[in-house]
Amino acid sequence: MEFSEDAAAFQRIVESRRSIRLFEKDPVPEAVIQHCLDLALLAPNSSNLQPWEFHWVRTPAKREELNRACLSQAAANTAAELIVCVARTRTWRRNCADMIRQIEELRAKGTRIPKATTDYYYKLVPFAYTQGPLSLLGFLKRIGTFFYGLARPTTREPLSHTDMKIWAIKSTALACENLMLAFRAHDFDTCPMEGIDSRRVRKLLQLPGDALVPMVLAVGKRRPAGVTLPRIRAERSWFVKIV
Amino acid sequence: MEFSEDAAAFQRIVESRRSIRLFEKDPVPEAVIQHCLDLALLAPNSSNLQPWEFHWVRTPAKREELNRACLSQAAANTAAELIVCVARTRTWRRNCADMIRQIEELRAKGTRIPKATTDYYYKLVPFAYTQGPLSLLGFLKRIGTFFYGLARPTTREPLSHTDMKIWAIKSTALACENLMLAFRAHDFDTCPMEGIDSRRVRKLLQLPGDALVPMVLAVGKRRPAGVTLPRIRAERSWFVKIV
Repeated sequence: MEFSEDAAAFQRIVESRRSIRLFEKDPVPEAVIQHCLDLALLAPNSSNLQPWEFHWVRTPAKREELNRACLSQAAANTAAELIVCVARTRTWRRNCADMIRQIEELRAKGTRIPKATTDYYYKLVPFAYTQGPLSLLGFLKRIGTFFYGLARPTTREPLSHTDMKIWAIKSTALACENLMLAFRAHDFDTCPMEGIDSRRVRKLLQLPGDALVPMVLAVGKRRPAGVTLPRIRAERSWFVKIV
Repeated sequence: MEFSEDAAAFQRIVESRRSIRLFEKDPVPEAVIQHCLDLALLAPNSSNLQPWEFHWVRTPAKREELNRACLSQAAANTAAELIVCVARTRTWRRNCADMIRQIEELRAKGTRIPKATTDYYYKLVPFAYTQGPLSLLGFLKRIGTFFYGLARPTTREPLSHTDMKIWAIKSTALACENLMLAFRAHDFDTCPMEGIDSRRVRKLLQLPGDALVPMVLAVGKRRPAGVTLPRIRAERSWFVKIV
C-alpha cells in the first residue's frame, strides 16, 4: 500500500525519534522551541480543560539546580534546553470559565453553538470535576454512579482526587508526545526524563500543591553515542488485540 | 523562519487534527489501521516497559455493546472503527523479562551493552516498580526516599499503586497521541472518548483487574458537521512559562 506524503513524513518522525541520553553542544533556535510548544498546546485534551504547563528553564542558576534535580544524568547535563512538563488538577475551573467566555464571544459573533455544549461547561464540567475535601463528594458520586450504572451505561471517572491526577497526567502526556515529535520533526531530539527528584523540581519552580511533574524533557541535537541500545519492543501480539 | 518539510508536515497534521463527533460511512483500510497501531507502539515509554494495549473491536456484536458502553454517543455510533486503549500496571514484569532476554540476545550477537543497562533491568526495575500488597513496600520506600532525599536529589515516584496507575496512563497516553496523529497523517480522523462506561468496557473485553481504560478511540472519515466548535485554547501564557 502506497502511503501519502504526510503519512510517510509522520512515519519518518516517529521512527527516527529515540530517547537521547547525550547531546551535542549545538543550541536549539528559540523559534523552533516556541513552535514546538505551540504544537504541544494543540494536543487533544479532556473537555478542552488544558491541564498542562510547560516550564522552559533558561536562567543559568535555575538550570544548574534543575540538572541536579534530574540526578545530574547525562541527558540533563548535556541538553541544550530543559522543559519541565507539569500537570495541574486545579486549573480546570479557570480554564472552564475561559471556555465559557470564548464560547459566548463566538455566539455573540453569530457562530451557532449547540445548547449541549454550553450546558456541558455551565453544568456538567463543574459537577464532574469537583471531588470535594478528602474526595468526599467524589465518594458520594461513586455510590450514585454505581447504582445508576446498574441499569444503564454511565460515565465512571473522575470520582476521586486520584482520578483527577490520572485525568491531568493523561492530557498532559498527549501534549508531551506532540512536543517530542515536534522537536524530531525539526531534526532535534529529546529525552523524556522520569527518573527525577520531583520534590526538588517543584520547589525550584515554586509549583503549587496540585502540580504533578510527569516528566522533564531534555532537548538538543543527538550525539550518536546518545542512543544506548537498538530499538527494542516486545511481541506485537502482547499489545495489539483484535476482538 | 523557514521550516523543514517534515516540520511543515507535522504542523499540518497537528493543526488539522480535531476531535470529530460525526463520521462518514467510509471504511478505514485495514493496512492504515495496522500502520497506525505500529506507530503507536513506537512511542517513548517509561523504562521501555510498554504498559499499553490496544483492543480493536471488530466483531459486530461486541462493537454494538461497545457503542452502548460509550453511552451511544454519535462519535462511537458513526465511527468506522473503535479502538479501546488500555493501560496495564502489572505487565511490567513480563515486559522487563523480555527486555532482559532481548538485551542478552543483542549482547550474544556482539552489541556492546553498558553494564548500567543490564543492572537497570535486573535490579533497579524490580525494586522501583514493586509496591507490595496495599502499597506497603511502596510506603516503606517512601519513608526511605524521604530521608535519603534530604541530603541529595533522588527519584521519587512510583511509590504506591496510585503512582503505578499514573505511570501506566502516562506512557499509554504518549502512544495514544501517536495513534491519533497517525490516523490524521493518513487523512483519517479520531475522537478520543473519555466519557465512557469503563466498567462495561472492562467487562466486555474481559480485562484483568489492573487494566485502566484511558480512552476509547473512534476512528473514521470526518463529516464537516463532526467539528462542533472552532478550535479554542486559553491564553498561551497560562501554559508556557519561561523561567
